[in-house]
Amino acid sequence: MNINGKHYRTIWLGDDDWSVEIIDQTKLPFAFETISLRTLEDAAHAIRSMQVRGAPLIGATAAYGVVLALRADPSDEGLDRAIATLAATRPTAINLRWALDEMAAAVRNQPREARVAAAYARATAICDEDVETNRRIGEHGLGIIQAHADKKNGERVNILTHCNAGWLATVDWGTALAPIYRAHDEDIKVHVWVDETRPRNQGASLTAFELGSHGVPYTLIADNAGGHLMQQKLVDLCIVGTDRTTAHGDVANKIGTYLKALAARDNDIPFFVALPGNSIDWSLQDGSAIPIEERDGREVTHMTGRLPDGSIGTVEIAPEGAPAANYGFDVTPMRLIAGFITERGVTPATREGLAHLYSERANPAA
Amino acid sequence: MNINGKHYRTIWLGDDDWSVEIIDQTKLPFAFETISLRTLEDAAHAIRSMQVRGAPLIGATAAYGVVLALRADPSDEGLDRAIATLAATRPTAINLRWALDEMAAAVRNQPREARVAAAYARATAICDEDVETNRRIGEHGLGIIQAHADKKNGERVNILTHCNAGWLATVDWGTALAPIYRAHDEDIKVHVWVDETRPRNQGASLTAFELGSHGVPYTLIADNAGGHLMQQKLVDLCIVGTDRTTAHGDVANKIGTYLKALAARDNDIPFFVALPGNSIDWSLQDGSAIPIEERDGREVTHMTGRLPDGSIGTVEIAPEGAPAANYGFDVTPMRLIAGFITERGVTPATREGLAHLYSERANPAA
Repeated sequence: MNINGKHYRTIWLGDDDWSVEIIDQTKLPFAFETISLRTLEDAAHAIRSMQVRGAPLIGATAAYGVVLALRADPSDEGLDRAIATLAATRPTAINLRWALDEMAAAVRNQPREARVAAAYARATAICDEDVETNRRIGEHGLGIIQAHADKKNGERVNILTHCNAGWLATVDWGTALAPIYRAHDEDIKVHVWVDETRPRNQGASLTAFELGSHGVPYTLIADNAGGHLMQQKLVDLCIVGTDRTTAHGDVANKIGTYLKALAARDNDIPFFVALPGNSIDWSLQDGSAIPIEERDGREVTHMTGRLPDGSIGTVEIAPEGAPAANYGFDVTPMRLIAGFITERGVTPATREGLAHLYSERANPAA
Repeated sequence: MNINGKHYRTIWLGDDDWSVEIIDQTKLPFAFETISLRTLEDAAHAIRSMQVRGAPLIGATAAYGVVLALRADPSDEGLDRAIATLAATRPTAINLRWALDEMAAAVRNQPREARVAAAYARATAICDEDVETNRRIGEHGLGIIQAHADKKNGERVNILTHCNAGWLATVDWGTALAPIYRAHDEDIKVHVWVDETRPRNQGASLTAFELGSHGVPYTLIADNAGGHLMQQKLVDLCIVGTDRTTAHGDVANKIGTYLKALAARDNDIPFFVALPGNSIDWSLQDGSAIPIEERDGREVTHMTGRLPDGSIGTVEIAPEGAPAANYGFDVTPMRLIAGFITERGVTPATREGLAHLYSERANPAA
């Protein structure tokens, strides 16, 4: 999508045609800086440190990480080491594993001298496919927003989202935000309630930034506010992304998603999850089996932002040495989800719904 | 309770025996500073700016605000003006209105020259009564925690709380935290999950500070984390405070309370509200009639804390000029509440339960 009128993807090849450029998302919204990834370790660090984040973009970055590793060492051992290193960067997003499997399949039986070119081709295709996937998610989700707009006779449709599942979380368009961008571009009046998404504030720093940059009306709120807004009928629907969805329909997403899904259910507000097919973990039934990342408690006790003089600073908001726990994700059970918005259409959040859309993966033997 | 081994209340008379000392809670946990209130406007400012907060302490401060006003002008007009000024400081807490009514009743029919003394006497009594009330809440809540400890064979009892309903929110002991302090003092193993409570971080700055100062084990968490902890069976019970409870049993408390109550219900975890009788608004049935304070969006977009050099600084965490909404409270419907812990005992969160405990107020004609 656009920043100051210029179109960006979140990951692209540099002018040298081999290095990989990303936006340093840890600097947003305070500074727009790009970083050049040149090694496997650069890519792993970018994922680990959340310079890139969002399940689809993690997958795309991991794909290029394999490419960069193969440039240095195209052997089977080099490939294995790259995959092991990248797989260990973040435990929850399934797209990471998916992308690594795709890359392995693309190069495994190639002669060594052909591997780098094959890897570039597959990584580039993964990015292009992600853009097309998200464009389609936008198309399918548009119908849902349109239906709400019709029901409200053109009054603005208020959509609550959590964390960032926008274009910054993908290669372009986003998952949860793709339908919102499409609706906005169709002149449907939309307004987004943006959960700030503590502790890393992806809502305040990324979702607010990208919606504002594209001109979509939004209001930033504390994560605590969503329930009250729903009680007050100030939310028409919720759309969030996912880091991993089980074959059964349970959804791991940024910590706090489950609380909003509960509030949506309590107030009869539809709660949708937007996802590409590669976010589905067909090997898992029950969401409780999804590994939940635990991160540094410092993300809870400290907060980074812009100081009055314009410089970036970090403040400690708790008593010195306060013990803090920091779980990255929670699992929203399928019973709380109104439907999945996928690149293949909208489906109920059930095993049957998912299996119908992705029959080739759900029943590989069929 | 104690800070560095020294016992404090949150409000007391100064050495001059007439001015009113408070702890500047906006400076916690970074600095422990007291402020001397000498005028009505000092008291109103202290409440408005949240140098004091917490429903019971707001009431106590308002009571002394009337005293300070009467020192300057003991006329009926002076009294009326003081009450109007103080009543307008914060809209949600009912204790504020209760304390002002108490003060008016104590001085209204007194000769002018007797009013200041009568006002001091009543304000002091309001403070002492608050301490005794909270001590009793602690006694009654202790039984609940003890029952959980027994059930867990002495394993630590994990209690989740939201915002600050500790001694800093009252004159001493606290409401929600009083049972926890009592249990801790009885050597029952307790551990508190402290919601940071965005946007003003009362959990991170006040609850963490006071539990740590008293030596009660706690872990600070993002507000988003409670649902996941409950799903993981890491929470045995929840106890929160309230700013206003309707005769019917609906509870207004800090924004986000409702979300935790929903998660507790979804995971069969008892969700208790600790309250003094003067937090009950007998004139209201339905919680949706409780006025919900809207505060400055800057509390969402900016965050204050300790900079690495030890000074206090404020950082902006959202894009410059980001629109933000800031609702201070939400309403938790009685159907989600396991019980009320009051100074008169524990009761189901029902109209009948409350009316039974407070029959003289629920049925003034009886």
